[in-house]
Amino acid sequence: MMTCPVPSTETERVLLGHGSGGQLSARLLAEVILPGVGGAGGPLEDAALVGTDLVMSTDSFVVDPLFFPGGDIGTLAVHGTVNDLAMRGAMPLALSVALVLEEGLPLETLRRVVTSIGRAARDAGVPVVTGDTKVVGHGAVDRVFITTTGVGRTHPDGCPSAAAIRPGDAVLLSGPIGAHGVTVLSARAGLGFESDDTDLASDTQPLHRLVAAMLEAGGPAVHALRDPTRGGVASALNELAAASQVGVTLEEAAVPVRPAVAAACEMLGLDALHVANEGCCLAFVDPAHADEVLAAMRAEPAGRDAVRVGEATGVRPGRVTMRTLLGAHRIVDMLVGEQLPRIC
Amino acid sequence: MMTCPVPSTETERVLLGHGSGGQLSARLLAEVILPGVGGAGGPLEDAALVGTDLVMSTDSFVVDPLFFPGGDIGTLAVHGTVNDLAMRGAMPLALSVALVLEEGLPLETLRRVVTSIGRAARDAGVPVVTGDTKVVGHGAVDRVFITTTGVGRTHPDGCPSAAAIRPGDAVLLSGPIGAHGVTVLSARAGLGFESDDTDLASDTQPLHRLVAAMLEAGGPAVHALRDPTRGGVASALNELAAASQVGVTLEEAAVPVRPAVAAACEMLGLDALHVANEGCCLAFVDPAHADEVLAAMRAEPAGRDAVRVGEATGVRPGRVTMRTLLGAHRIVDMLVGEQLPRIC
Repeated sequence: MMTCPVPSTETERVLLGHGSGGQLSARLLAEVILPGVGGAGGPLEDAALVGTDLVMSTDSFVVDPLFFPGGDIGTLAVHGTVNDLAMRGAMPLALSVALVLEEGLPLETLRRVVTSIGRAARDAGVPVVTGDTKVVGHGAVDRVFITTTGVGRTHPDGCPSAAAIRPGDAVLLSGPIGAHGVTVLSARAGLGFESDDTDLASDTQPLHRLVAAMLEAGGPAVHALRDPTRGGVASALNELAAASQVGVTLEEAAVPVRPAVAAACEMLGLDALHVANEGCCLAFVDPAHADEVLAAMRAEPAGRDAVRVGEATGVRPGRVTMRTLLGAHRIVDMLVGEQLPRIC
Repeated sequence: MMTCPVPSTETERVLLGHGSGGQLSARLLAEVILPGVGGAGGPLEDAALVGTDLVMSTDSFVVDPLFFPGGDIGTLAVHGTVNDLAMRGAMPLALSVALVLEEGLPLETLRRVVTSIGRAARDAGVPVVTGDTKVVGHGAVDRVFITTTGVGRTHPDGCPSAAAIRPGDAVLLSGPIGAHGVTVLSARAGLGFESDDTDLASDTQPLHRLVAAMLEAGGPAVHALRDPTRGGVASALNELAAASQVGVTLEEAAVPVRPAVAAACEMLGLDALHVANEGCCLAFVDPAHADEVLAAMRAEPAGRDAVRVGEATGVRPGRVTMRTLLGAHRIVDMLVGEQLPRIC
């Protein structure tokens, strides 16, 4: 009698795709990380409630190259964590910064990075209150990795959650997508797409003021927020659709992509919906209040190009589809594997 | 006319010693990191107050090897952050865990590490509420680095501070020193000092329950607490002496070092006072309450071998000296350079 081979993890290894923010990331989290650490206190979320009004979020930054048009690892480290807090409707109170440095890193590089952290933190109005610095031997880390953690306080006007979307909700997007991912990829590969004669630059920016304006305008009508970083808009929408058990329909014609980004995606064979953003926000809003929230977004610098891009539906829960320019419908899937490693 | 060369940082590089916890670390912090990030909100401390009653602390863990007698990178990552909170008198509320993984890491290794994180967190009674996972290419990080951040609430009975020591304070030490550093070094080098026939194992353990007992016994008489990790007891005492502008005198005969640790230090040419600990606590306590606090320490598992090892003085502020077994006095300096890289 044949026996089926028992699946074994002993020979399995970590793949780049496990860090993509897509399907493999979700599996690693569900099958390895959560069973290991999660027993202590519930699910591991991007930003978690602590007690009744505190929110905590952490992110490691391993972007390559360290510096790129529109930002650097230091600005990302501040904005990424501020934005994760903001997506739970929390305003940042304090940041911590942990540095792992490679022996031999020029001090001038470190100085540029920490100065950038300081400037980004001041611009966002959040203090860096504590930190740590480790140095490891040459070759044990690639130059500098940064982990920032933020604590914030929930906003009195609402506490958006990935699980709170209802059929009929309008899907709002704060601005054009794909800029961060293609800029970093182009800078890394020396492709020159991000040269001075294009407007290709990372969109990295803090979103907490935009979110505050949205909550002031819409309050509890703002059901869910998500910044589509690794895995892009496609992965973020799939996660939200699954968490709230709704369908999502996008209008391709409404999704803004800058010409330089579209051209770079075309040449690199990338779908802009899968490309990472660091200064965009998706919102699911009660349709009765969507116009007010959209107007509030457009009044903020981080949301001046905000648009309505689709809606949540009651059909095919967990499924994201897009009505294309030609009127056909296609499935918008989560990113599978790794498209752009070390994008943040 | 000769001109003096202008000191330049352009050619300076990060050294292993910059991560030692000793003099070079202090200089890197003061000259590069704080000027860069510190403008936002005051000094960067091991654990910082946020608002009136929250404390936040972060640490990256890069220990090599990942597993060693008495613990592993996962237990260190939990205990290290819990202990940094405890040294400010704070009881942990929540932890975040950020993982940076090397492509190709066996999933089984990852599973062991995260299971260890989960167990240590449950044992300490603190939930892991949020996290992040990044994967970088083979060679861009050595297997797995972990950054844990903790938030805690200050204890109602006291808020010890590095700057609150007064001349005359008793110096208490919770137990024998040097075990963590020599165990990790021995395991890394395959020296076998940590084999089954010795009692050499890391002292890694959470100290927040010990600290709670000390604060309940001594309240505001507990002036300062410090866990002597990187740089050891010597560096911790120098930092405290400088922060409070007091002298510190140690009694060599009173400082407990287990025979196996002493023998390993002897063979490796290490001073146990400079070796890292992960489950020890130094306390400066008003002498009128020192006996009560010492008794409370001894009633806790983490403090059963607690002893009084010296006192703070008003002479030679910032200077730490030790009365040796022979009755002579020697200066106990901060660690210079790097003695044991990647010890935590």
